[in-house]
Amino acid sequence: MSSNAASARSGRRSGTSTAQADILAAARELFAAGGFDKTTLRAVADHAGVDVALISYYFTNKRGLFLAAMELPIDPGTRVAAAAAGPRASLGRRLTETFLEIWDDPVTGTAMQGFLRSAVSDEATATSFGEFASEAMLPLVVAETGLHADTARVLSSMLFGIATMRYLLKMPMFTAPSTRELIALYAPRVQAVIDADDGPG
Amino acid sequence: MSSNAASARSGRRSGTSTAQADILAAARELFAAGGFDKTTLRAVADHAGVDVALISYYFTNKRGLFLAAMELPIDPGTRVAAAAAGPRASLGRRLTETFLEIWDDPVTGTAMQGFLRSAVSDEATATSFGEFASEAMLPLVVAETGLHADTARVLSSMLFGIATMRYLLKMPMFTAPSTRELIALYAPRVQAVIDADDGPG
Repeated sequence: MSSNAASARSGRRSGTSTAQADILAAARELFAAGGFDKTTLRAVADHAGVDVALISYYFTNKRGLFLAAMELPIDPGTRVAAAAAGPRASLGRRLTETFLEIWDDPVTGTAMQGFLRSAVSDEATATSFGEFASEAMLPLVVAETGLHADTARVLSSMLFGIATMRYLLKMPMFTAPSTRELIALYAPRVQAVIDADDGPG
Repeated sequence: MSSNAASARSGRRSGTSTAQADILAAARELFAAGGFDKTTLRAVADHAGVDVALISYYFTNKRGLFLAAMELPIDPGTRVAAAAAGPRASLGRRLTETFLEIWDDPVTGTAMQGFLRSAVSDEATATSFGEFASEAMLPLVVAETGLHADTARVLSSMLFGIATMRYLLKMPMFTAPSTRELIALYAPRVQAVIDADDGPG
């Protein structure tokens, strides 16, 4: 880090933190202009004036780059993978808990709520996020849980409906319950949708 | 109508359409300031300078007044009541169809989407709508369907999640399917949540 500081002081653009910032700025611009789907790592690298390998080095893949560019403090993929492990009969509870823990946490929850607000008010953010959810998150959830894509899609709206009603619209019937009460309310009903799934289990 | 037109031309405030407009203006102001719950019909009548009986005459009750004030073109209560009638085994399909027909219809859908956008961006609208949903809509759905309040609450977020993802965020995985495809996707899964309900039925 001291060499980066030295680079910054000497005004060079090639320091690690500068390259990272350049990549993130380029990614934000291209995701906003073209969405998640059409934006390639190569285009981001060209725009940032760095080698494409540097993007993989810092952000692993396009999913990681997107999360960093949107300043999302968590990788939903990692969280879902953790929730997927365990008995199928309690998958509903683990998915519900994971979702509500992320959204009710003071740090990650505030970030997610802020992100949801900007996605709702800004079409470019909405498009990028929508494509990210469809192209990167849904297939991951399906792969990790073994659920049908159709079932995963319904579960995503079921849980996302909580986010809208609890944090965006602040409806009393969704703000009054505690995290624990919401988990008790949703876990068996999310499980009912999972149990109705005729997918690989 | 010709006598109202005459009243308007003569500058009198007591014509029918003027009284209705005065009531709606007063209702919008008081709902925005105090929310749905605390706003009484008497307060609206006082604010509009009309007799409270006139509100009942024009808008039936507070629910009707709220819907008119928010310029919502439908009464969800009437629609849910219609969907509730019929065999329990297909209630999931009827509720899903009713919801998607309202939201995908060129007239009612456009109005609902516009309303959702303003509720998300304007806290006063969100508060009134949230209280309306909790105090007026949920109990009605419970009474009409015989579902547990908990189940009705989960179903509301399940369907509302579609509204958020299809119309607000325009996520490809929710905008690509037709109304018919979404009904086929949701109906059996809404039914699974209903079947898991241990309520009266």
